[in-house]
Amino acid sequence: MPYYIGDVIKDKNRLVARTPEEFKKTGVDVILGNGVEAIDAEKGQVKLSDGAILPYDILVMGTGADAILPEMAGQDLPGVYTLRNLTDGLRIKSYLNEKVIRKAAIVGAGFIAMEMSEALRNLGIETVVLSRSPLPVARWDAAFSKMIVEELHKNQVTFLPGTKPVAIEKGKDFALRMTTNCGEMDADLILMALGIKRNVKLAEAIGLKTGESGAIQVNFAQRTSCEEIYAVGDCCEVFNRVSQKWMYLPLGDIANKQGRIAGQNIGGSPGIFPGVVGAQSFKVFNLEVAATGLTEAEALKSGFHPVSNIIWGLPIARSMAKDEKLGIKLIADKPSGKLLGAQSISAGEGAVKRINMLSVALWAGMDLTDISYLDLAYSPTFGGAWDPIHIAAQGLMRKMA
Amino acid sequence: MPYYIGDVIKDKNRLVARTPEEFKKTGVDVILGNGVEAIDAEKGQVKLSDGAILPYDILVMGTGADAILPEMAGQDLPGVYTLRNLTDGLRIKSYLNEKVIRKAAIVGAGFIAMEMSEALRNLGIETVVLSRSPLPVARWDAAFSKMIVEELHKNQVTFLPGTKPVAIEKGKDFALRMTTNCGEMDADLILMALGIKRNVKLAEAIGLKTGESGAIQVNFAQRTSCEEIYAVGDCCEVFNRVSQKWMYLPLGDIANKQGRIAGQNIGGSPGIFPGVVGAQSFKVFNLEVAATGLTEAEALKSGFHPVSNIIWGLPIARSMAKDEKLGIKLIADKPSGKLLGAQSISAGEGAVKRINMLSVALWAGMDLTDISYLDLAYSPTFGGAWDPIHIAAQGLMRKMA
Repeated sequence: MPYYIGDVIKDKNRLVARTPEEFKKTGVDVILGNGVEAIDAEKGQVKLSDGAILPYDILVMGTGADAILPEMAGQDLPGVYTLRNLTDGLRIKSYLNEKVIRKAAIVGAGFIAMEMSEALRNLGIETVVLSRSPLPVARWDAAFSKMIVEELHKNQVTFLPGTKPVAIEKGKDFALRMTTNCGEMDADLILMALGIKRNVKLAEAIGLKTGESGAIQVNFAQRTSCEEIYAVGDCCEVFNRVSQKWMYLPLGDIANKQGRIAGQNIGGSPGIFPGVVGAQSFKVFNLEVAATGLTEAEALKSGFHPVSNIIWGLPIARSMAKDEKLGIKLIADKPSGKLLGAQSISAGEGAVKRINMLSVALWAGMDLTDISYLDLAYSPTFGGAWDPIHIAAQGLMRKMA
Repeated sequence: MPYYIGDVIKDKNRLVARTPEEFKKTGVDVILGNGVEAIDAEKGQVKLSDGAILPYDILVMGTGADAILPEMAGQDLPGVYTLRNLTDGLRIKSYLNEKVIRKAAIVGAGFIAMEMSEALRNLGIETVVLSRSPLPVARWDAAFSKMIVEELHKNQVTFLPGTKPVAIEKGKDFALRMTTNCGEMDADLILMALGIKRNVKLAEAIGLKTGESGAIQVNFAQRTSCEEIYAVGDCCEVFNRVSQKWMYLPLGDIANKQGRIAGQNIGGSPGIFPGVVGAQSFKVFNLEVAATGLTEAEALKSGFHPVSNIIWGLPIARSMAKDEKLGIKLIADKPSGKLLGAQSISAGEGAVKRINMLSVALWAGMDLTDISYLDLAYSPTFGGAWDPIHIAAQGLMRKMA
């Protein structure tokens, strides 16, 4: 009988279990508040923190990832939070409800930091983003990151480039005082949004193979180097269909898919996880921001010969547009003409739609010739007769000719 | 030197000509208000309605299509309009501005009729749609058409199923009086939205080959059966990549693409038009409606063994959704598992996005296994971790198993 340390079981669309008691009725033991201390892969058993020993035939590792912390003084003070799991969210929410928060500092400028800046501004809190780099969200082209900085400013979020925290201490007027490489600042709330790191402690302790990325190696069935052990989610690697390499990409939808495949294989109905193309998106105020495939640097590293272009257009037909704006960057391989990656940003709706289409194109390994004539559901309300995708592909083909 | 009877020339993104005088400066003669009466393909010349003879080396036919009229008494009365071209639009607009329009009747229930019903209701005009069939927009599954009828009712548009016009005459209280198979009705404005028919008179007169659809046959370079004559747009056929057959699909974005390819080939830079998958969309009030690929009937006719399913879900993540609703119908071939077509409807944004992704999937010839794990740009604002596309594909695979 399998042991689950966690979540929810659904029967079709009906939720059948949410609490350990409800799970028990479905024949599943759920153990909460009791972590796994060690695995004995030889004997096929795990040791819980309360000392109990549980035998297993098949073990699924979903140890996830931990928030990265800069290891500095004061990062455990009340009012300093990481952004990793539901508990973090609940803690931040209580803090916001209990205290008067006038000013918040977000350390980090990835897409979680961007989303948080919007959430905090919507609560009327003065918000500052500290970014190590000159621009936020490194994955996107500088032309797009600059538009994000403008959007932050338009919404009264202060963006501090080249700024790193050095230490945090209790404040006087404000709850906290943070020293940075550029001086000191007050805040009632500090959010550490510096990314995450795979949690592979248990895996490494029993010698499971990890990949170049440091995350657990799995095969297409989500099986690790140990036949009885599967791994899914933010602790393991995933196959990138564009680079044809295993990589680390800890995103929620990927974890969901891997879990389904592992479950299928364990349950005796074989399946493979076909990999990803690296599609991702976020919203910050009025901007949609999305990307898929490889960046130019990643493409070079994988041996491709990337050429790229950026075009600016409209997400809907010119006759219907007001303040909309859409940018698309395409990256293609010069010798083969194959699409390698794409990035998009839009004021208003539009970027995610394009990136999703280009993700399907990447999945299928399309070249620019195909993309330049793709048949899309044209209506002036939803796009021009020539979509920005077509125009971008045709532009890049001219550049490569 | 080529002769253009028409439009606009652009140099990169700069508009260089809009009027005949402006075109002249670019070296192009534009002749307006003077139609082509006859073509002499042997001599390579066309005869204009004013009697002038123009020689050509290459001729491009863009004779388009005409609005279908039911041939009944009174269809030429003032206040009765077809919906075909810019002139129709301008005429309707003047009529709306000059007269007090209390009630409008739209004859036909295709997607142009749906769009017009919204436009007229937004002007506060009482609007009635007369539909020969029990439901509007025959291309879409009845489950979706029914949702459209509800949306029409919600917006005070009267939908009359099984209703055909018989005759129109001048009215007393209202400008017009229309007799139908179900009785009489008053209206100040009657719009004939019964679809269009390719205009192939000139083509047939010189013996150009037409296809099974009755439209002009072209090859992948947009060349007709006569080497010096090309055809583009609503007068010619287009290759359907899913059925692998030539068909008639008069849509604006397709015409644009064909024009570009014809121009390229004529200009000495060879290119082919890679065909279509049949993507189309429209908006009616708060609904997005879109479809791509084949219907079940078309799939059967093409020799496939179609199986289909419909799922209802949410266009964005459950935690973010309010009144949104999304339906997807997938049609796949049982022996091969290949996607053949898809239809979608959404209350609020969502249907077009999905149909565009599935159009790219159809373009690439994907099967349901691929579609059930496509990597999309997940963010709760834009969709669930499992997109309705995944859920629909997985559901149809279970049905086919």
